[in-house]
Formats: sequence, structure tokens, C-alpha cells
Amino acid sequence: MEVEFKALLDDLDVLEKSLSDPAPIHKLRSHVENLANLSKCNPQRRSRVKELSSEVVDSNPYSRLMALQRMGIVDNYERIRGFSVAIVGIGGVGSVAAEMLTRCGIGRLLLYDYDTVELANMNRLFFRPDQVGMTKTDAAVQTLAEINPDVVLESFTMNITTVQGFETFTSSLTNKSFCPSKEGSGVDLVLSCVDNYEARMAVNQACNELRQTWMESGVSEDAVSGHIQLLVPGETACFACAPPLVVASGIDERTLKREGVCAASLPTTMGVVAGLLVQNSLKFLLNFGEVSPYLGYNSLKDFFPTMKMRPNPQCSNVACLERQKEHMLAKPERDAAAKAKMEADASTAIDEGSLHADNEWNISVVDDANEKDASKAASSSDTTLPEGLTREFPDADEYEREIAIASGSGEIEEEDDLEELKKQLEALNAV
Amino acid sequence: MEVEFKALLDDLDVLEKSLSDPAPIHKLRSHVENLANLSKCNPQRRSRVKELSSEVVDSNPYSRLMALQRMGIVDNYERIRGFSVAIVGIGGVGSVAAEMLTRCGIGRLLLYDYDTVELANMNRLFFRPDQVGMTKTDAAVQTLAEINPDVVLESFTMNITTVQGFETFTSSLTNKSFCPSKEGSGVDLVLSCVDNYEARMAVNQACNELRQTWMESGVSEDAVSGHIQLLVPGETACFACAPPLVVASGIDERTLKREGVCAASLPTTMGVVAGLLVQNSLKFLLNFGEVSPYLGYNSLKDFFPTMKMRPNPQCSNVACLERQKEHMLAKPERDAAAKAKMEADASTAIDEGSLHADNEWNISVVDDANEKDASKAASSSDTTLPEGLTREFPDADEYEREIAIASGSGEIEEEDDLEELKKQLEALNAV
Repeated sequence: MEVEFKALLDDLDVLEKSLSDPAPIHKLRSHVENLANLSKCNPQRRSRVKELSSEVVDSNPYSRLMALQRMGIVDNYERIRGFSVAIVGIGGVGSVAAEMLTRCGIGRLLLYDYDTVELANMNRLFFRPDQVGMTKTDAAVQTLAEINPDVVLESFTMNITTVQGFETFTSSLTNKSFCPSKEGSGVDLVLSCVDNYEARMAVNQACNELRQTWMESGVSEDAVSGHIQLLVPGETACFACAPPLVVASGIDERTLKREGVCAASLPTTMGVVAGLLVQNSLKFLLNFGEVSPYLGYNSLKDFFPTMKMRPNPQCSNVACLERQKEHMLAKPERDAAAKAKMEADASTAIDEGSLHADNEWNISVVDDANEKDASKAASSSDTTLPEGLTREFPDADEYEREIAIASGSGEIEEEDDLEELKKQLEALNAV
Repeated sequence: MEVEFKALLDDLDVLEKSLSDPAPIHKLRSHVENLANLSKCNPQRRSRVKELSSEVVDSNPYSRLMALQRMGIVDNYERIRGFSVAIVGIGGVGSVAAEMLTRCGIGRLLLYDYDTVELANMNRLFFRPDQVGMTKTDAAVQTLAEINPDVVLESFTMNITTVQGFETFTSSLTNKSFCPSKEGSGVDLVLSCVDNYEARMAVNQACNELRQTWMESGVSEDAVSGHIQLLVPGETACFACAPPLVVASGIDERTLKREGVCAASLPTTMGVVAGLLVQNSLKFLLNFGEVSPYLGYNSLKDFFPTMKMRPNPQCSNVACLERQKEHMLAKPERDAAAKAKMEADASTAIDEGSLHADNEWNISVVDDANEKDASKAASSSDTTLPEGLTREFPDADEYEREIAIASGSGEIEEEDDLEELKKQLEALNAV
């Protein structure tokens, strides 16, 4: 609007010169100037920054994120600017996930959706009533660009389950212009935030083909349960190995989603699922904490089941079977790398043994801020608590140990028996 | 701005009549009309609704919430319009909690904060860069009113820990003009979303005095842990009975929060905590599921500890001790009411025994949508799953039973021994 106001004022100047009495023009000009000022109250964007600063001032949008380094949670937060994340489905979960990553200063976001914003979406976070009628991708880009101009946003308004849509999807994932030196595909992580079987299968197919690690998320039709799941082609179960919500045996799962049914939804459940999804994405990308292979959320009981699913050697997805074979053949290489890393960590631990000994930030529910690996965990005992403080409940490690013993199931052991490995490989080749 | 544009056009009319050549005025008028149209692209609000509709159309902002009734999760969703919730602290957790409740169509929100929006807050959800410099309460009202005009918003820009602020706080909580027939105080729930000890103690004091149920929330300084806690004066531990994050024994806990320290924060952790807080608020208000007495969130390990804390008979808070006494004396009354309810439920169960027998919505992680009481749970066994489906993991009930056995701690038994009750009452009187 600035340009229009300038043109209007110029016209007034011309008119003033042609008149004998300039008084009415003066009045008009003051009106216009007033209006120009009012129009400036519209959203102003902050300017882009070149580097993330850790300076503790109110005007720094990254100070609280860079503080994660000072607190020993993340080694190098600024790495986040180099990452690309694709989000498929910009609904109740995907839009909030996109906002969280945007506020965290992710390098680049790729957004996929074909739907438009409706008033019926207003019971979930993110979209606003004034965006009704816009495509979800356009509305998301509008809001996200306003929040953080440092993030590169690419939006794809299309359905990835059509033949053409699937092609555009895979080719956009392999585009490396943002970070040409990157290994593998052009993105670091794909987040599936869709609400139907076909779209999940399309993401699964693309990721299996591209050897792309992805995370799946979902919320139940009654709005009170949800889950997230990490899928590493060849290493974990793929979506076709065993659908995560229910195991369809003998019938077509597609028939389970009824046409014309209005599913319930809540901003709470979807906000929690988006939060858990992006938190695990950050742990995966920035290498801290433990990434959950599967995490459920049952909101009626605040119950959070976890589990780990190995790939199915009888999986119907051909690309999954190929990835499984590759993964098995690469085992000796992985073992050697793990051994080398362990040895390197051990020597580092000796060198820097007492770095965190004062444990300055020990005020947390469960003290594991520095437990990024076993060697650090061992040094973080109750003796490091400031004087006068006692713990309210036991360490998470202890708790988990008890559950594993009680349930008797726990996580399935990593295969390390050579005979077992051979058998599995033979089974795969036989399919 | 509409008024200003109208005045400008009127002035142009007057000027036109005084001129011999109206051409320059015509040009000016088209400029002004163009600008007036541009200015109308500002956010448009949706109109208010009289009653929540359950109609499944894109234009209904409540269809997905009313669906909770059809799915058997909530008995009467529309009750939400009668509730008032106070949120103290409109920061990373409080603002998101306010947005969630607003999108759920809560009746009335009371918002308390004295702070202003800064760019340093942009790493959390809700506030936008164009709101920098506004008070958090003003900015919140601006955004929330745009999202849902049906919610009554009251904001209090003040510090509740000052003498005058505390008085305004308690008097606003007792104001019953929104729902004059309501028993007790003027609000149904207080949510504490503050980041310091003094403010929590002020909320605790007010709620103990007013017999007000409240929920406390918090996020650790290293941004990777959080918790929520339900506090019912006299029935559960109050905040002074045992501070939830750490137990200060012998030293002043206030000295633990260091001045000038920049705490880390993440939109993920705060989003999850806000989601868990409001989900439990909805369960409490709309009477579904189980409200967690305490729920922790350790994001590094995706570990969610729960526990229950009984009030401390040696609590330093006098109002807490009074509430404890009242609670004990009312035990016979509670027992009688519980017995009557159990008998009524039993007879209803006989009448409506087969209402949910077809269990139409059985697609969820853990099947407990209908397990609102034990009688319904009993009818929801594996035999109700549609043909061809098998469960991926055990029922939450089974899991919890195992944990309770393993940990040996579990929840503390409700006191039902008369002798024990007498002893506790005597101990309270002796303080």
C-alpha cells in the first residue's frame, strides 16, 4: 500500500500547484498521511539474520535456543540451519510441526498438501478464520514467513497419491540445490502427518525407494489417542511391514476408514503429537537424547506405550526387502564403525573427564541433561545435586529397567549372532 | 480506517464542486477507493454462534468437537460454554493453553501477565513478531478474539505477587457475573503457567483460601523436561506441602533460580506440556477419562512419570491445613455419595447394558474410548474388534498393573481406617 499512498500524495502536490487556494489540499494531505500511518500498523516482519547469535537480549529470537548449547543439551545448535525437513499433510499435526520447526530456525521446510482451510479446521491450532478458502500450503507459508523469515519455505499444493503427484514428490525430495554437498536425498527427514492409508503408503514407497529416514504420526478418529513412529528403511519395520494402528489380517485396511464419517479432533491431542514428533525430529537431527522408535499417546489414561518393530522379511513392499538386504550386508561395516566410535569416546572421556563435574544446571525433573552417552551418565549421580536438595523420584534408567523386567517383553535384542543373520538373509532371498 | 476513508472521500466531493475542472479529483477518488479496498483485506472475523452445532459441514467450527459426543468420549460437549478458566502466566505454556481452550470453545478465559512480547519469545508458539512491544495479555486477546469470537476474554495486566495484584487476582476469581448460579468461586479451574517460585506460591495461597482446584505446570531451565500437577485444596498436596520439581530441605528454594541466567526453551516441550495440561483440564471439566494427579515429561527419553501426593499434615500453609481438616471431616459425606453413585450407575448399567455393544469406533491405539467406568470396560474385550483385526499391544490397564507390582510404590492407598483418620485429625489440630 505504500506505493499507492505515495502516488496519491504526488497527485495532491500537482493539484495544489494548479489551485489558487491551497487550504483544501492541506487538509486532504493530512488525511492521507494519517491513513498511510494507520496502514503501517499492519504486520511487520523482522529482518533476516546471517548467523544465530547466543547473545542474551530481548531482541534476539535465537537466545533461548542457543542456550541449549550452554546447558549441555546440544553440541552445536547452529547446525539446524543446514537441515531440510519435508512435511506431508499440513493439517492439525503437520501445521503445528511446521510452526515448531520454523520457530526453532530449521534451514528449509518442504510442505505438501492439496486441501483448503475451512472453518471446520478451527478446533485445531495454527490456521486462522481469515485464512478460510486459502490452500493450506499458501496459508502456512503466509504465517510461517511472518514468524521466521530465516526459514526457506517451499510449498507443493498437490496430492502425492496421484501418479503425477508422486513423481513431483520424489523429485522434490531428491533436489539438492539447498545443500549440494549433502549425501543421500535432498532432505534430512520426512514427517508424515497425513490422515489416510493411501497417503501413508505413498510416503512409505517414496522413502523406501530413496533410502530416506522418515517419521510417521497419527491421531485416532475419536481424537483421544495418537502415536509417532521412526522408520529407517531396512533397519526398522516399514509402514507396509505392519500398519501401526491396527494389524489388518486378511481384509483390506482401506475399508476400515468409512466414507462420510466426521472424525473428532482436539487441539490438545494434535498439539501433543506434533510436539512429540518435532522433539524426536530435533533429537534425531541435532543428535541428543534418545529417538523413540515408536511412542503412543493414550490421553484418557496419560499412558505412553513404546516399542520397537523389526522389519518383516515377508513384507509386501519390494523396495523394503531391498533395503533389508542392504542393511544386513552392511552389518560388519556398522559394527566396525561402532567399535571405533566407542574407543574414540572412551579416550575423549579420559581427556575431558571432569568437564561437567560441577553440573551447573541440575534443576530438572529427572537429571539426565548430560546423559548423552553412557560414560557421561555414570558421572551424574546424586552426589552432584546442590546441597539441600533431594530427588523427588527415581532416575528414568532405573524405572525403565524395572518395566523391562516386569513386562518380560521390552525391546527385541539386536541380532548379533552370525548364524541368525545368515538365516534371515536366506529367508529374504527366498521371497 | 473505514471512517477515515469516508472523510477523505467527502472532502474530495466538496473540493470537486469548487473546481472548474473535476478531472484531477476523479483520478484522486479512484486512488482513494483503491486504497480503501486494499485496507479491507485485513483479518475478517467470523460471526458468533448462539449454539454449538454438530452439523458436519466445512463452515461449522465446532463439528469436530461435537463429534466427541457421537464417538462416546464426552456426554455433553456443549457444557464447555459454561466454564470459566483462569490462566496465570501467558508465556510459552500459558499462551498455547489459552489458544487450545479458545479453539475448544471454552466459555470464558481470564488471562494474567505483566510482561511484554519480545523477539526472544519467538522460539515458542503463539506470539508473532508484529506483536513485539505489546503486553502479552493484549497480544493474546488480539489473537484469541480473532480465532474464536464466542469466547469471553478478560485480561489482567499485572503481577499477582504484589499486595495489590494479589487482591485483584483473588477478587477476579470470585467474580460470578459470568455464571451467577455457580457454586464456590467464579471460575472452574485455575491453570498456573508461571516460571518462578513466588508466582506459584501466590496462586497456591489464593486457591487454598478460595477452595479452588487448580493445575500447576512447569518446564525445566534446560528446556527438555516438564510436568503438570493437579491440586485440590485439602485433598492433594498443595504447592507448599512439597514443591514439585525439587524438594528444598534446609535452604531457601528461591536462591536456586539464578539472576541473569538465560533459560533455554523449546516450542516442542512447551507445546507438549500445554497439550497435556489442557487435555487434563478438559477431562476434569467435561468428566471423561482419568485426570492425572501428576504427570512428568522427560523428553530426552520420552519417559512420563506419574505419582500422587497426599497433603502434608505439617504444611507451612495455614489455609492448606484448614482445607485438610475440612476434607477429613467431610469423609462420611463423600463415602455416602460415592455409594449412592455406584448404586445408581449399577442400575443404569442394567438398563442400558447393550447400548455400546456394536462398538462402532473401535479403531484406536488402545481401546478404551468407552471405558469411562468399570462396568463399560468389562464389556470392551477383544471380541468386539472388527473381523480381521488383532491388537498391536496390551491394554493400558494390564500395563499399569504390571508397573504397580514392579515398582512396589504405586499410588498411596486412600485412608479408610477410622483410627488412622482420627490420628491424622489430631495431628492437624496439634499444629
